[in-house]
Amino acid sequence: MTVEDKNQVLKDQAIEIFKAGLRAVDPKAAIKSYCGLNDSGILTIGDREYDLNSYKRLLVIGAGKAGAPMAAAFEEICGDRIEGGLINVKYDHLDDLSRVKIVEAGHPVPDENGQKGSESIMEIAAQAQEDDLIICLISGGGSALLPMPAEGLTLADKQDSIKTLLSCGATIHEINAIRKHTSAVKGGRLALTAHPATTVSLILSDVVGDDLDVIASGPTVPDPSSFAYCMEVIEKYKIMDKLPPAAADYIQRGAKGDIPETPKSDDPIFQKTQNLVIGCNMEAVLAAKAEAEKLGFTTVVLSSMIEGETSEVAKVHGAIAKEIVKTGFPAKPPVCIISGGETTVTITGNGLGGRNQHFAIEAAIDIAGLDNVAILCAGTDGTDGPTDAAGAVVDGMTLENAQQAGISAKAYAADNDAYHFFDKVGGLIKTGPTNTNVMDLRLVLVGSE
Amino acid sequence: MTVEDKNQVLKDQAIEIFKAGLRAVDPKAAIKSYCGLNDSGILTIGDREYDLNSYKRLLVIGAGKAGAPMAAAFEEICGDRIEGGLINVKYDHLDDLSRVKIVEAGHPVPDENGQKGSESIMEIAAQAQEDDLIICLISGGGSALLPMPAEGLTLADKQDSIKTLLSCGATIHEINAIRKHTSAVKGGRLALTAHPATTVSLILSDVVGDDLDVIASGPTVPDPSSFAYCMEVIEKYKIMDKLPPAAADYIQRGAKGDIPETPKSDDPIFQKTQNLVIGCNMEAVLAAKAEAEKLGFTTVVLSSMIEGETSEVAKVHGAIAKEIVKTGFPAKPPVCIISGGETTVTITGNGLGGRNQHFAIEAAIDIAGLDNVAILCAGTDGTDGPTDAAGAVVDGMTLENAQQAGISAKAYAADNDAYHFFDKVGGLIKTGPTNTNVMDLRLVLVGSE
Repeated sequence: MTVEDKNQVLKDQAIEIFKAGLRAVDPKAAIKSYCGLNDSGILTIGDREYDLNSYKRLLVIGAGKAGAPMAAAFEEICGDRIEGGLINVKYDHLDDLSRVKIVEAGHPVPDENGQKGSESIMEIAAQAQEDDLIICLISGGGSALLPMPAEGLTLADKQDSIKTLLSCGATIHEINAIRKHTSAVKGGRLALTAHPATTVSLILSDVVGDDLDVIASGPTVPDPSSFAYCMEVIEKYKIMDKLPPAAADYIQRGAKGDIPETPKSDDPIFQKTQNLVIGCNMEAVLAAKAEAEKLGFTTVVLSSMIEGETSEVAKVHGAIAKEIVKTGFPAKPPVCIISGGETTVTITGNGLGGRNQHFAIEAAIDIAGLDNVAILCAGTDGTDGPTDAAGAVVDGMTLENAQQAGISAKAYAADNDAYHFFDKVGGLIKTGPTNTNVMDLRLVLVGSE
Repeated sequence: MTVEDKNQVLKDQAIEIFKAGLRAVDPKAAIKSYCGLNDSGILTIGDREYDLNSYKRLLVIGAGKAGAPMAAAFEEICGDRIEGGLINVKYDHLDDLSRVKIVEAGHPVPDENGQKGSESIMEIAAQAQEDDLIICLISGGGSALLPMPAEGLTLADKQDSIKTLLSCGATIHEINAIRKHTSAVKGGRLALTAHPATTVSLILSDVVGDDLDVIASGPTVPDPSSFAYCMEVIEKYKIMDKLPPAAADYIQRGAKGDIPETPKSDDPIFQKTQNLVIGCNMEAVLAAKAEAEKLGFTTVVLSSMIEGETSEVAKVHGAIAKEIVKTGFPAKPPVCIISGGETTVTITGNGLGGRNQHFAIEAAIDIAGLDNVAILCAGTDGTDGPTDAAGAVVDGMTLENAQQAGISAKAYAADNDAYHFFDKVGGLIKTGPTNTNVMDLRLVLVGSE
């Protein structure tokens, strides 16, 4: 085989491995792999069993971009045992549902539709009785798609509070505490409202590390933060005067004990709450690992929690590729390095692209000249940045091929124009929208000699 | 054991592992492990043998910061079989030598002493005969410490040429081509001058990837670049008018064929030339690996070629630590991840530190709160940036300990003041200058539960 042929085989294998990762985190597949109903009416969810005969009503609520296919899969399992329910999803993120209502709402900026849907969802939770079973479907975008400000606050008050925190340089941890403590639904308040019903949240995680209280701001999860902590944050950044008065007042009243705290981990309501991650980056990583091994590769899972500036993270992956080729570390070829998570791009240009395509163009620069190496980077949602590609795949000849066509990878990278680079030299991966999001997958493949 | 105790054990082990890496690349140890002389006068160098009885003279030349200890070790092996020689070293980088002369010279900015020393070295090479054996000792800093402009050029012409290239954004590859093609010694010209003598270069690599033609600009190594390529570079950046006239003229004459090219890989002179890397980052990595395994750790060698912005590379290492703790990937604890290479720091503050201490403070932020994790980053030269520390070691409590002392890791990191951070909270690693430099070592240790 020529170098070109070998590289092409590797790139094809990389795409196969990526797609195996995608299949594992398909919302419908995820629901079906964690939930099952037998003929006796026993609903199995993860390692727990719920005897539907002992519940009066089975209700479905939730929010997130993958809500519709998740609900569709759950309807396939439980059919007309589902009494009803309502989910908030992003506009046009639909599926055919017969029992559960869909509200289309704003994302990433919450809107009135979202708030109305949230009020209906909270109404369902509030009216639920001790013998009701509520299934709560949570996925990426769930925080923006479940907007319900605390009493006395408007949606604008809540959004302005977050803007103030962002502008003063608060950490994501600090922002989340304020977000939960200006909300009627987040930080476990949905579970509190649903009590004494039994609540089971099925969660597709789009968050690095899969912290339950962070995904969609944890509507059914104990909240480790408090009003007192929110006051510390406000004092630390001296922003009491900069917050919307209603928000500042609400948090101050909370810190004085005039408003009930978000529920904590020792709250007995959580004895009737199950939170189960049914899809996350690591599941995609492990499915990719299994597929790579099926194709004969030794695998090394680097981490599912990779963050950082895309070009620099690409350099590390490139360095690993070079080392494998030179010395067979960390593993001898054929080897497939797998990493997940989500990187960021500091925009310097005006081009079209996304973090995954940017990673791929930077990786192409790093591995230029290496034979028998392919690197793929793609998002599991199928839409990388504002493009119709999920990501791209490159090899050691990508740079040279581009040069021969008079196209400079470095210039396109500097202009953040990876989409047009790959559109010209080839390498774009187009899956179409996948209706899921467990962040990104990166694959470094080195073939044997 | 308490968490503190466990962390302390891990940090102590990290330092032990780092020191094992250091020992493997000590200049004297490296010379002694690759060279040996038996009673019959057979000098073994790597896998080759040189019968000193068949050579008239054994001469030692070379340049680099580790030159003096390398020469001292070689003198210990060959003693008065050495006829003489001369090496250029950095000011104060001395050792006791009895046969080989030392010239102290400027680094990183070359000076007149360096040029005079280089002329003497070239004189030794020029006068060497077919039955002479020349040992050439090359180490970090060898390029600046072996300055000898091509005929008709001054040292200032050469330096101004490099400045012009740097300011127009030329790649290191392009700069090296010009550097070699304005030099009388680099790009294999030293080997050419020494011909028909036999030349053996013993090389301590301070370059990512250990490319022989890059280390000290490859004085005894075939040159893949050419005058024609230099002209391409000059035209690409349109800098003919910006180069010193003597340099521009020299390269133009070279491209016309009026000046002999640097020797290429098919040049027969290289049949009498051996280039042997006796110390490099991977050797330190492998020694660290062996020590970590002796201490009971499973090891994963990430790459010896890690480059990139320090804070972002630290994030990747932090993500791997988090994954090990959470899922046991890429390997189950106790595990030691080892990486080498050299990162860069984009300076944003006015503090004191170096890339290794900056890595450590960023890593401390990334792994905050994790039990049983330690991360070490240190330079093999023992002097990280303009400090008396080689680097630093941190654990999951470093951030909290600092906070309790009223010290903000983020503020010190933003001010590039890692040295003072660690001076206050502990963690600096001080080895003193090691007289070697094979770049940096990074260790991520995760203990078992």
